[in-house]
Amino acid sequence: MSADVSAREARVLNIIETARSKRPRFRDERVTMAHGAGGKATGALIEGLLLPAFGSAVLDELGDAGTLTVGGAALALTTDGFVVTPIRFPGGSIGELAVNGTVNDLAVAGARPVALTLSLVLEEGLPADALRAEVDAIAGAARRAGVAIVAGDTKVVERGHADMMYITTTGVGRVDPRARLAPSALRPGDRLLVSGPVGAHGTAIMLARGEFELDATIVSDTRSLWPAADALMEHAGPGLRCLRDATRGGVASVLNELARASGVAMLVREAAVPVDDAVAGAAELLGIDPMHVANEGVLVAAVAPERADAALAALRAAGDGGTAGPFARAAEIGEVHSDPAGMVLVETGFGGRRVLDQLVGDPLPRIC
Amino acid sequence: MSADVSAREARVLNIIETARSKRPRFRDERVTMAHGAGGKATGALIEGLLLPAFGSAVLDELGDAGTLTVGGAALALTTDGFVVTPIRFPGGSIGELAVNGTVNDLAVAGARPVALTLSLVLEEGLPADALRAEVDAIAGAARRAGVAIVAGDTKVVERGHADMMYITTTGVGRVDPRARLAPSALRPGDRLLVSGPVGAHGTAIMLARGEFELDATIVSDTRSLWPAADALMEHAGPGLRCLRDATRGGVASVLNELARASGVAMLVREAAVPVDDAVAGAAELLGIDPMHVANEGVLVAAVAPERADAALAALRAAGDGGTAGPFARAAEIGEVHSDPAGMVLVETGFGGRRVLDQLVGDPLPRIC
Repeated sequence: MSADVSAREARVLNIIETARSKRPRFRDERVTMAHGAGGKATGALIEGLLLPAFGSAVLDELGDAGTLTVGGAALALTTDGFVVTPIRFPGGSIGELAVNGTVNDLAVAGARPVALTLSLVLEEGLPADALRAEVDAIAGAARRAGVAIVAGDTKVVERGHADMMYITTTGVGRVDPRARLAPSALRPGDRLLVSGPVGAHGTAIMLARGEFELDATIVSDTRSLWPAADALMEHAGPGLRCLRDATRGGVASVLNELARASGVAMLVREAAVPVDDAVAGAAELLGIDPMHVANEGVLVAAVAPERADAALAALRAAGDGGTAGPFARAAEIGEVHSDPAGMVLVETGFGGRRVLDQLVGDPLPRIC
Repeated sequence: MSADVSAREARVLNIIETARSKRPRFRDERVTMAHGAGGKATGALIEGLLLPAFGSAVLDELGDAGTLTVGGAALALTTDGFVVTPIRFPGGSIGELAVNGTVNDLAVAGARPVALTLSLVLEEGLPADALRAEVDAIAGAARRAGVAIVAGDTKVVERGHADMMYITTTGVGRVDPRARLAPSALRPGDRLLVSGPVGAHGTAIMLARGEFELDATIVSDTRSLWPAADALMEHAGPGLRCLRDATRGGVASVLNELARASGVAMLVREAAVPVDDAVAGAAELLGIDPMHVANEGVLVAAVAPERADAALAALRAAGDGGTAGPFARAAEIGEVHSDPAGMVLVETGFGGRRVLDQLVGDPLPRIC
């Protein structure tokens, strides 16, 4: 076992070396909100504390889901805790998010979602109607995504020791034989696609909190991404390099993670990134780049250049299809380069270039 | 699908009818601590609200784990949230509990534990050393139980919106081909075994809270039950009817659930139930029956009479074995009868009999 671990660690270190970056360390004395925000502090917690302790080759890959073989079946497993506040917001609620979020982690790992487990932590005093509404939201989202809920658990904590409810869902999927996806598979020339307008979910949550005097109605993008992943695997074939769900930290975090894992650079054309006007307006007022805002139904795909057009067409037609379909506004937003390795650059509307980094602080806590 | 659901519901209703009991309803206006205590209120929440909404045949069986077939492999899946306070206590901690609790749900479902996922909800301000200690506890317990941690997630909530940390683990196991276990399989004449002294975990937690002026040192029984389940499947063969992990609500809740599911009665000889002197003393002072106290490393087994002696001997020798082994004090505590169906009776030391019901209120919140 120790020889195995050493070999794995050597491989991981090698990948990180290639990306001209060091494995981050966890040096903080206390947990802060930034550790939950999906940016650099989260990376330090995961890569500096959790991965070394658990020493698992599967975890080291840092995919959206772990894969393992049980009884000859290739499975994907993923888990996600949901602590969003408020628990209901325009376009969705914590229950719907908890199903879609986990379904999406499976989908972008190239696995067909099969079953979910559900763990509830409820705050004493939670109105029964609020619980009923979330149970219905969970059941509805699971039905729409085609997954069965096969196990569950409920705990209650005293008033003030939770914020209404927290939900953890864990998903089991069957690895799709068409999928050959890896975060380290990107090559210069690959094209970058997003499945729809970015930044809606995080912006919707911020506005729903009423902390800002903005009158815009922005609706969360929470949805199952399986139809999009399915269409991409079908039409891009082995040209599909990698899929990522752009949740915490937004599209910017996903691109940075992929650039580092593959040792490549990315060039994103800002004008090509779909953003709803209301989201763009709200983000500007709030001083936030929509590329850093969380989505709950947007994936990033890297596709070999010869399959990029077919992949984009298939993506746009996925799901309900047509001009009103959930992925009708999918777009090609940039491409992969060789230099500067490990970095993401944005070409602005004025022709300039700037570095698009991961989030460092935590402008948007508890958006999922 | 609706025909399916009706058939399932009919089957479930039939089982419940047989047990002379009705499916409980969820009528409360608010969530209370009792809904998390594993007794009647928890039953009403699960059977009255969650099961009807999710309409899953797997869930309806109310086993410790759900089973499903993926890609030809028979899997067991289980999930558990851990909210114990304090997070460290004599004999264990929340991290160790989170691994063993989920491993045990798989073991008593007759499934060999293979992999776990880990979801952390951390309170802002949690000392890094406390987090490190639990990460190490999780890694150690997983190593001892022989399971890999294959996926994880971390969320942070603001100070005061959690109580240091909550952990949800989800386990995947491979259904053991030797297992033919079902809560409805008990027959009159079957013998009831417990794998060790009861009531230690819940009592240890209560004393660790310092709410009672008791000087006893009582150590939690948290441990993996897989060696016990493995030994029972090997030596009782098809004579092993059912296994249950006696967590929230204690041995009393497990026996009541099995009596109801099988439509049988149980007779337990109080004098035969192993209880440590310190636990018995503390329970008496606190006015609690050790049979209602949670365990985190005690299983209840129902075994056909002709295999009972072999099963008990195998159980006592399981794990490290010998007189100091973790299951050395396993005992036969009673047997299954036909009347009064659905009820559990205790024969006291004085020869009298009383009904041993499930917990109704919540004397022991947040013990796991």
